[in-house]
Amino acid sequence: MADQTAEEHRGYVQPGGEFNRDTHYIPDRITKDARTPEHGPQDVPLWPVEPGRYRLVAAKACPWANRAIIVRNLLGLEDVISWGAPGPTHDERSWTFDLDPDGKDPVLGIHFLKDAYEKRFPGYPRGITVPAIVEVSSGKVVTNDFPWITHDLSTEWREFHREGAPDLWPDDLRAEMDEVNDRVFRDVNNGVYRCGFAGTQRAYERGYDRLFAALDWLEDRLATRRYLVGDRLTESDIRLFTTLARFDAVYHGHFKCNRQKLIEFPNLWAYARDLYQTPGIGETIDFDQIKAHYYVVHKDINPTGIIPKGPDTSGWLEPHGRESLG
Amino acid sequence: MADQTAEEHRGYVQPGGEFNRDTHYIPDRITKDARTPEHGPQDVPLWPVEPGRYRLVAAKACPWANRAIIVRNLLGLEDVISWGAPGPTHDERSWTFDLDPDGKDPVLGIHFLKDAYEKRFPGYPRGITVPAIVEVSSGKVVTNDFPWITHDLSTEWREFHREGAPDLWPDDLRAEMDEVNDRVFRDVNNGVYRCGFAGTQRAYERGYDRLFAALDWLEDRLATRRYLVGDRLTESDIRLFTTLARFDAVYHGHFKCNRQKLIEFPNLWAYARDLYQTPGIGETIDFDQIKAHYYVVHKDINPTGIIPKGPDTSGWLEPHGRESLG
Repeated sequence: MADQTAEEHRGYVQPGGEFNRDTHYIPDRITKDARTPEHGPQDVPLWPVEPGRYRLVAAKACPWANRAIIVRNLLGLEDVISWGAPGPTHDERSWTFDLDPDGKDPVLGIHFLKDAYEKRFPGYPRGITVPAIVEVSSGKVVTNDFPWITHDLSTEWREFHREGAPDLWPDDLRAEMDEVNDRVFRDVNNGVYRCGFAGTQRAYERGYDRLFAALDWLEDRLATRRYLVGDRLTESDIRLFTTLARFDAVYHGHFKCNRQKLIEFPNLWAYARDLYQTPGIGETIDFDQIKAHYYVVHKDINPTGIIPKGPDTSGWLEPHGRESLG
Repeated sequence: MADQTAEEHRGYVQPGGEFNRDTHYIPDRITKDARTPEHGPQDVPLWPVEPGRYRLVAAKACPWANRAIIVRNLLGLEDVISWGAPGPTHDERSWTFDLDPDGKDPVLGIHFLKDAYEKRFPGYPRGITVPAIVEVSSGKVVTNDFPWITHDLSTEWREFHREGAPDLWPDDLRAEMDEVNDRVFRDVNNGVYRCGFAGTQRAYERGYDRLFAALDWLEDRLATRRYLVGDRLTESDIRLFTTLARFDAVYHGHFKCNRQKLIEFPNLWAYARDLYQTPGIGETIDFDQIKAHYYVVHKDINPTGIIPKGPDTSGWLEPHGRESLG
């Protein structure tokens, strides 16, 4: 997402200020028969759902992209939307396909994700972010508006979901999910960045206090319920999970979110393991790529570029004991 | 110690290399009647033990200086050797007395510790380090050779020790202490710096492996014994302790010593709490000064200068349950 843009790459830490995330994205949406969507932005260009037409470009390192990879897996959309995976590090030219043979995405045939943005909007002035959905035939980015990308995979592609796929946006839970998602986004998903990219001690401490207040609230909430909202896995869980998975590996040290580690929150830690051990989720987590991304790309936080060898991640496979809650 | 010198301050991290500690100090020793000492360097200038003649300059932030503050407390030497405490941060001119009124040491009357080094050796070319012992009347540094400073407080100042003071260098344990101290120095006390100041990924990883191998060895050793050597508190414990006390607050995140936290080693953590709760030891630990020192002074590791708010240190006062081992 926007934290990995070329623009912000030149100065994550704003001297004297707070970190403010650029929340302007290419707002197009992909809906069934290009219908007007029921929820979210409606007055935007609409594209029709169509198997094989689109490619999801999503780096495993990035928490916002990781959401889309997980949702695609859980819904069984692997055969209808292909996936291109940029490597964990990048220079000012944006995410690159350096993990692929010849450093080129085998479907789009480009080295730099920037090329797909430029094809759609020559001179594109904003961040080159993941996740992005690209139309394969034209090579143009359709959207990078990450919360609606995952939302619409759930609600607009239903006819292509695998049998037994979870409903990650159930109607009866939507109001509560919106409320929970809002706090999780502000204070946790983005909250860790507010700590790490703070330009003043005061801004950092404010971010830290909000982050840990929210984690305390979640710890408490998860004492008696297996999932964040309702009694089923929803997108609210996925959104929280991709931050939790990075917490001890990156945010604790690199972003100074260090009141305690995730593993020191009994409920949150068991909850995170439960999700990690859910088929379709854990296999998307690549701790080496995650660490490489943050510790190499953020030169103004880690000038040496040295990547920590820890933490020990063997605990993620330990029994979580939360079956009895759900 | 040398990690806080003006010289190294300009480049802790040596690009392409390993961190090598400057181990050249002013080697003078203070002995009873200026006698030739039984252990350690003998062919050095000797000064006589004399109450009131010397001042220990030791910043609470510095682990090497912290040793001397603890030993002075445990032996009850507060009335015969006074203590001057520089603040946690400093610029290229060295440690300063910025915590004192008018930023001036009330006994030595100087603002910068460097002044006491210059008075002894005009143009002194090496690091201005703590701990240092200064002769009050002349204002000259006598020695900054930290391992022998604490050793000689134990062995040469015996007649001034408080009643019931521990023998921190018992003759019957000396051989084993030397062996343990050697590994603890190389792989733990200095080992954390080898991780934090490594100039290459390879040098960092080598330091990390040695550090955690040594901590595993210590964890095992402390499973069945209350103290590191013998059945009593010795200087070996003090030497290990001042690194352990800084581990979660600084070394884990700032120096990337992050396989696990101290609190994740059951025996080492209980051992550290046992020492912390020993009168004369815990009160010398100032987590705010410790964090301020490392996170502010090492600009090439933490360019923003932001000081982490965590970790939660309330656990240091929890029961340790190690009485039964002793």
